Parts: sequence; C-alpha cells; structure tokens
Amino acid sequence: MSLLTRTEQALSTYFAQAAGVGAPPSLVAAMRHAVFSGGARIRPQLCMAVAAACGDDAPELTNAAAVSLELMHCASLVHDDMPAFDNAEMRRGRPTVHKAFSEPLALLAGDGLIVMAYRVMLQAGVQHPARLWALMDNLTHGVGLPHGIVAGQAWECETSADLGQYQRAKTGALFVSATRAGALSCGQSPEPWAPLGAYLGEAYQVADDIRDVIADAAVLGKPVGQDALHARPSSAQALGLEGAIAHFDHLIDQAADAIPACSYRDLLRQLVQREAERLVPKELCQGYFEAHANETVGHVRAAH
Amino acid sequence: MSLLTRTEQALSTYFAQAAGVGAPPSLVAAMRHAVFSGGARIRPQLCMAVAAACGDDAPELTNAAAVSLELMHCASLVHDDMPAFDNAEMRRGRPTVHKAFSEPLALLAGDGLIVMAYRVMLQAGVQHPARLWALMDNLTHGVGLPHGIVAGQAWECETSADLGQYQRAKTGALFVSATRAGALSCGQSPEPWAPLGAYLGEAYQVADDIRDVIADAAVLGKPVGQDALHARPSSAQALGLEGAIAHFDHLIDQAADAIPACSYRDLLRQLVQREAERLVPKELCQGYFEAHANETVGHVRAAH
Repeated sequence: MSLLTRTEQALSTYFAQAAGVGAPPSLVAAMRHAVFSGGARIRPQLCMAVAAACGDDAPELTNAAAVSLELMHCASLVHDDMPAFDNAEMRRGRPTVHKAFSEPLALLAGDGLIVMAYRVMLQAGVQHPARLWALMDNLTHGVGLPHGIVAGQAWECETSADLGQYQRAKTGALFVSATRAGALSCGQSPEPWAPLGAYLGEAYQVADDIRDVIADAAVLGKPVGQDALHARPSSAQALGLEGAIAHFDHLIDQAADAIPACSYRDLLRQLVQREAERLVPKELCQGYFEAHANETVGHVRAAH
Repeated sequence: MSLLTRTEQALSTYFAQAAGVGAPPSLVAAMRHAVFSGGARIRPQLCMAVAAACGDDAPELTNAAAVSLELMHCASLVHDDMPAFDNAEMRRGRPTVHKAFSEPLALLAGDGLIVMAYRVMLQAGVQHPARLWALMDNLTHGVGLPHGIVAGQAWECETSADLGQYQRAKTGALFVSATRAGALSCGQSPEPWAPLGAYLGEAYQVADDIRDVIADAAVLGKPVGQDALHARPSSAQALGLEGAIAHFDHLIDQAADAIPACSYRDLLRQLVQREAERLVPKELCQGYFEAHANETVGHVRAAH
C-alpha cells in the first residue's frame, strides 16, 4: 500500500471515530470539507516513511500520529483562509470552508480539528502511554507556543520578524514534528530525524513563496500574489525569484543529506526529490522565465 | 488559601511555563489579555473543590487540570466574541481581544490557548501517566466533538436545535469536565461527580440567558440583549423570564442535591448557593420586575 493510500485510509477511519455520534451535522460537514479535499498529505507521509525506517512496530500509533499532524495542518489552513487573514475564496480548487459554509463554522471547524487531533492520539495511544506522552508533547510543540505553527502565523502580526524564524515556525515546526513523530511512534529517539523535517519544512515555505509568484491560480488551486498583497515576509521578495529557487534547491539537497543512514535511505531520498519536483516544477520555472525574459526581476515582482 | 487565589496563582505559573520563551510578543499579550481579565474562575474552582473532597493527593496535577479547563473556557470566549459570532466589543468591562489587538491575533490567541491547555496537562502530568490520560480524555470530551463546547457553539449554526442539547453542550460539557477532573486528578472515579457539573452547567447557561435580559451592560461588563439580536436559543425566550428564573432555581437545587456524600458536602453546597446568588441576584430580579410591572412579559422581551 502506498503511503498516500495508507494516509487516506487512516484519516477516514480516525476522523469518523473521533467525530463520534450526535455532533452538529454542519460542523462535521465543514470539518470534512477541510480535511478531505485532495491535500498532498506530505506531513503524514513523512511521518509514516520515518516510522518505516524505524521499524514501525506500532503501526496504529504511527497512523494516529500521522493523522493528528494532518488534522492540525488542515485546522491551520481553515483559519488562515478566513477574512481575518488571507480572505481566500479558493483552496485546492474548491471553495474555502468559510465560503462553502460560513465564517462561524470555519472558526469552529478549525477549533474542532485541533481538539480532534488530540482525541485521535488519545484513542490510539492508550496501549503505549510513554510513546503517547512523547507524541502529544511533540505535536504540541509543532503547533503551539513558543515556536509552533500558531506562533509562526502570529509573526505576520508583528511589525518586525526575522524571516528565518518566521518560516521555521510557520511551516518548519510541523515538518519537524512529522519526522520526529515517525521515530517516536516506534519508541525511538527523534533527534536524528529532526534536521530532515527542518530542511524540508523550510524548503516548503520557500516553495510556497516561489509558487505565489510564478504559478497561475488554476495550477495552484488558490489565489496567487498573496504575499505581496498582504505584505508578508517572502523569500521571493527577500532573495529575488532566481535567488529563491537556488535557495530552495540547496535546502532540498540539505534535506536529502540529513537523512540518517538506514536501509530506507535511498527510498527517503527519492521521496524528497519527488516532492521537490512537485513543489517547484523545473518546467514551470523555465516557462515563467521565458515569458518574462524582457522584464527585470523587479518588474516581474511588481506585475504580481 | 482560597480556591480563587489558588486558581490565579496556578494560572499565572502555568501560563508562563507553557508560553515558553521566544513566542511572538503580541500573540502572548493577546493570550494574556484573554486569560487575566478578572473572570469568575468557576470551572477551575469547581475542579479544585471536588479534588479537595477526593483527597487531593496530587495537587499540582489538580492545578494543571483546573488551569487547562480555564484556558479552554477563555479560548472559547475569545472566538465567540469575534465578528463572525457575537461581534462583541466588551467582555468583563474591557475591550475584547479582537478589539484590543486585532482579529488575526484573536483567532490565533484562541488557537494558542487550546493548544496551551494540552501543554499544561502534559507538563504537569508526566509523573501520573494513567491519571493524565484520563484527564486529557476528559478535557477533550468537554471541548470537542461530539458533545463538547465547540459542538455546543456550532448548534447555533444549525437551522434547528434542541434547546437542552444545545445548552448541555455549549456550557454544561465543560462544567461536567470540571467536576470530573477534580476526581480524576486524585485517581478516583469521576462518575459520581458528573451530575453536579451537569446541573450547574445548565444553571449557568440559563443564568446567562436571564442576565442577557435583565442586567444592564455596566453590571454585566458586556452587551445585553444579544440572544434576541442573534436569534439564539434562549431559556428566557422559551420559558418567559419568570419561568426561566424558576427553572434556574430548580437546577441549583438539583446541583446541590447531586453532591455525593462526603466530608466536604456542606462546603460544596455553600459554594453552589453562593454562585447562584452571584449569577442571578435576587435583588436584580426584583428590581427588574418592579421597573417593568406594567408591561406584559411579551412586551418586556420585545423591549430588549
């Protein structure tokens, strides 16, 4: 079974279990809309891949950890899309939760997903109390204060923020949680796996900045040009587009080199390279540069 | 030390610990604004009172459980006050979080407080893994799907909802979690304590409906007449004002009668009676009825 299939099956099973019976139907529908929407599922797959490299001796716990990471990610997307932040109408080619349902339901769906992430862990982890504690602590670090994704998002509200610190928290924190969770699910030390998550997370944030400039909305499934519009810190703005792409390539190399020696190393390197190509397709970059060959980089950015 | 003092000290200690070092300062300030604002702290006090009745052999765990309940309550208030819901400008006589800071920070402060509640539990519970599991499960039931306060709030978004089910979830769920948490912190069975929480929680919701009609904004520290304005299910509307007050008195009697036989029974009964008088002061009711003596109940409600 592919890691993506395993992720989708686990999400489906754990979501239904954790939602229980008798909840307000619109809330459940809004939460389902947020979760089952064709996401890339990179965080849970990363968790599962690391767990496989660590023996995966408690696969149900691995699945729960993977699901809880994805639920947290989905919760953050629902809240980030709301009018208070990006005011985005589309996500993954479909209406965002507040557009498809309502703002109150989007607010509650995000809250509900955060709590559901913990519930999934609690339900699955009862057989492994020590691992459960470490996994929940790890999840909490990836999301909460001081350096989780909620804190990362909040750096956008500060008058000044260090770009690296912002990116590490906004995206990197949950990637680090994902690779660490793979090891923790197997009762193994998470530290050797943290750098892989950190480099990959930073690469994702840089890729997001790049795609916000070069992709068109149809490819991305959401509006482009949002960073400039919202005056957010962006690698593409800080380094220029070519500089950002070079930085992305370097981060991907560092991620691949950070994979600890293990029998799954080649497989994990392939996963990283495949994700890199999916995130910032070479063809898309080339097409963009050809189309804007007569403009300076400054003009290109101004045009978006 | 009074339970209120113990609550405030525990909140202060655990908040600082769980916020850590290096979080975005505005986010921390917004979360502090939400938490340290003169709330009645009834849920943590209830948890501590039940723990005292159960022996309170792990007071640090009790404190953490009490704090986590209050953090969840504060998170729900921050999100409920936002424009997507009540659009309230004042809470406890001060600007609401989105007014004092911003909508983005209010959204993130609520998210951050939910995660912080779990972090507080994890930090304090490492010595008591079995009790910790039960406490986190209990907290999760009080907040999440299917019957926690997030679900309760979401019933407002349904076209039809059973008033009792709505009130049990919106307010009752976290009160039940509070009384249960007091027993669970001591490793004791929570079930005998659930009815006290359930009756008291329902009484609080009814009191809220009553106060929304009879109190003035200066006394309440927040706008009145919100239920009618937002067409929310309300006991005062369903039963009339006098009916709602009678229902409230009955629920308080049931709460007092539900306290299990223990050496703290009289003390707990006093706590319940004191809260009842604080919530729906007899003098306030009398004053209201005298001022509106010439109006029918229908007119009274229409006037608000």
